[in-house]
Amino acid sequence: MQVKLFIAVCCFGIMRVHAQNGIVVFQSDFGLKDGAVSAMKGVANSVSANLKLYDITHEIPAYNVWEAAYRLEQTVRYWPAGTVFVSVVDPGVGTERKSVVLKTKSGHFIVTPDNGTLTLIATSLGIAELREIDEAVNRRKNSEESYTFHGRDVYAYTASRLAAKAIRFEDVGAVAAPEVVTIPYQAAQIENSALKGGIPVLDIQYGNVWTNIPAALIKQMNIAPGEKLQVKIFHAGKQVYTGILKYAETFGAVNKGQPLAYLNSLLQLSFAVNQGSFARTFHIASGADWSVEVRKVP
Amino acid sequence: MQVKLFIAVCCFGIMRVHAQNGIVVFQSDFGLKDGAVSAMKGVANSVSANLKLYDITHEIPAYNVWEAAYRLEQTVRYWPAGTVFVSVVDPGVGTERKSVVLKTKSGHFIVTPDNGTLTLIATSLGIAELREIDEAVNRRKNSEESYTFHGRDVYAYTASRLAAKAIRFEDVGAVAAPEVVTIPYQAAQIENSALKGGIPVLDIQYGNVWTNIPAALIKQMNIAPGEKLQVKIFHAGKQVYTGILKYAETFGAVNKGQPLAYLNSLLQLSFAVNQGSFARTFHIASGADWSVEVRKVP
Amino acid sequence: MQVKLFIAVCCFGIMRVHAQNGIVVFQSDFGLKDGAVSAMKGVANSVSANLKLYDITHEIPAYNVWEAAYRLEQTVRYWPAGTVFVSVVDPGVGTERKSVVLKTKSGHFIVTPDNGTLTLIATSLGIAELREIDEAVNRRKNSEESYTFHGRDVYAYTASRLAAKAIRFEDVGAVAAPEVVTIPYQAAQIENSALKGGIPVLDIQYGNVWTNIPAALIKQMNIAPGEKLQVKIFHAGKQVYTGILKYAETFGAVNKGQPLAYLNSLLQLSFAVNQGSFARTFHIASGADWSVEVRKVP
Repeated sequence: MQVKLFIAVCCFGIMRVHAQNGIVVFQSDFGLKDGAVSAMKGVANSVSANLKLYDITHEIPAYNVWEAAYRLEQTVRYWPAGTVFVSVVDPGVGTERKSVVLKTKSGHFIVTPDNGTLTLIATSLGIAELREIDEAVNRRKNSEESYTFHGRDVYAYTASRLAAKAIRFEDVGAVAAPEVVTIPYQAAQIENSALKGGIPVLDIQYGNVWTNIPAALIKQMNIAPGEKLQVKIFHAGKQVYTGILKYAETFGAVNKGQPLAYLNSLLQLSFAVNQGSFARTFHIASGADWSVEVRKVP
Repeated sequence: MQVKLFIAVCCFGIMRVHAQNGIVVFQSDFGLKDGAVSAMKGVANSVSANLKLYDITHEIPAYNVWEAAYRLEQTVRYWPAGTVFVSVVDPGVGTERKSVVLKTKSGHFIVTPDNGTLTLIATSLGIAELREIDEAVNRRKNSEESYTFHGRDVYAYTASRLAAKAIRFEDVGAVAAPEVVTIPYQAAQIENSALKGGIPVLDIQYGNVWTNIPAALIKQMNIAPGEKLQVKIFHAGKQVYTGILKYAETFGAVNKGQPLAYLNSLLQLSFAVNQGSFARTFHIASGADWSVEVRKVP
Repeated sequence: MQVKLFIAVCCFGIMRVHAQNGIVVFQSDFGLKDGAVSAMKGVANSVSANLKLYDITHEIPAYNVWEAAYRLEQTVRYWPAGTVFVSVVDPGVGTERKSVVLKTKSGHFIVTPDNGTLTLIATSLGIAELREIDEAVNRRKNSEESYTFHGRDVYAYTASRLAAKAIRFEDVGAVAAPEVVTIPYQAAQIENSALKGGIPVLDIQYGNVWTNIPAALIKQMNIAPGEKLQVKIFHAGKQVYTGILKYAETFGAVNKGQPLAYLNSLLQLSFAVNQGSFARTFHIASGADWSVEVRKVP
């Protein structure tokens, strides 16, 4: 009897995690200067005025699928399970790329073209199930003549109907093999007593440089706050920066204008200038062709 | 009996279309860097915390009434009937321009200075009724000393009270003649076997050039996907661009960096460079003094 | 009996003003290009999906605490009592600055580092009670390893729990002395028959220059619409502009391109160019080292 109850509770727990919660979160490279984002939200409100609509960002640089992938990785996990995300960065709109909905093991749903946007999140949160959107069914009525605004007519529409429970996840379309299109990138690792990693993205507003090297690797190297690190940064394999940085818990641990190394809000190694811009000061950008090498200064 | 029921259903249907739905959508040239938009939403929440508040854009170039008109045209139809819009691009604030609420035949409400902002939407969705706001009644309490923030004290306040059903449409003010102030612009037409039209706006984020030539005229010219078009673009009557463009259903139909013609999300003829910027590449802008001429290449 | 009822009604009125209303309004210097703001709203939705989330701005210039203070001053009063604000402009993150929640006499709550952000609002709306956030209790679970994202893990989390009534104001932490950290600034005053004041901020979108001189002082000087004013502007004590401006009720009172003086939406003396930019035309900026002197032209 107790065992049965335990199983029932478990199942309920799992089901609860997977049920849509009425929240839709949008991301795109549309910008906020025209009416595109508003049209998507109008469609969502036409599906149901009871949805709660939010945004990640609409300032993804045009066609930058890698950054779309990174912004999902940065935010999805902070939203409750059952939230439906729509990401529309779609340089291949109208070509043969698939439109999919990913259900993660954490119970989040992501509606997107399968063009690399899911590179990071599919790994970090795991693929519970991937379905290909059947556009014959899941497409805004009377939108067949429009070739180019899938964001509004397919993605926002399908996401809203899913979030509003007008359709079940099963109604999205057929199950696809649990594999997403991925963009190659340099993984974080320890090699010859040095930390190696990439620079997936900048913290643009402050000019901080974020690597993909996690706290766990730093711990493995026995690097503690207050220690000094030798940092080298490479662009397309060529060294463009070298410096000795203090590894600090707070920006205030170094003087204004001084550089430092720290853990960012994703608990990954990052470089900053206290009340300044590391990226601008040292001409550092981000992307697949940037990498870093970090050693402890003995 | 059945006839009566039919009539009742019809009437109910009509009434339902016209009833406010609790959604308010804001547009302005205020930008998002200061507190002006937030103050408007604070006023709306003070009227009723149950309203649902959204935006078109607040990045309309300062005082650009034409673009305000275009953004309404681009988005209003995608929101459910009963939605109340507020558009505040108001170079004549404090002068004698009228403040109005337009009820469209589609059941949308638009609260705005009558300064050209309604140029396009009044034509496309139709004027069901136009009322002039009686500012003696429909004005935020204690705001009489402020001469310049009509957006917050009159427009946002009136729109919120209308959306929250604190007032009926009839309470906005007296009925005005069903005519709005309009900005002259070049209409789309066929002339001497050529398509002629204007460039009302750019798709800024991607650098695409959007004309006002609808799909119907393209069909009338028997232009089919895959055909080539001779495109000329004029600024102030002077030709500034000529080229042969493929008319394609998808950007991927031409190589990266190549220009093409296509139907945008409003089903109007547009010009783009695949993964590039047509506007920047060929120095094309938008507005009333820009026009295009398009012919089939035999 | 009637007296008792009266007292009961009064108390209820006071309590009602102070009760949280489920609205959270965010402000930061994070910008909208990455996922930081979205992560804060995800945390809020994880606390309760029934909260209503809005924004002041996230475009505060990086680390500009003064502007954060000004934006609160500009907007908080337009939101209903019981609204909870979160302001995260935090150059001293990780140092010894206190994290606080201010309850104003108007019944608004502001969650922020106590670093000068409350300079203006604490004076204008009054301090009902100030509490220091006990981060041992009011911190997102499993966030202890992150040193730098207080905005998400402490401020957004605490504000959301307060707004959702998951905690009472008393549960935020211990009562602090009713004094906030303030940034020195030049107060508005009359001196030797001249109005003196500062330029706390620009109306960026339009290039208008906003002083902190209130309508009351203008009235005290018997300045009426239509009169001419001699305006001098100083930067770091050095005069950088002098001109004779018409004091007008509307921009339309002067020709396009002409400068004027007017009362802005906060009823403070401001300078503009009709359909132009006063700030850009005359190279005026804002901040603690800018000041103005205004005299009536006889």
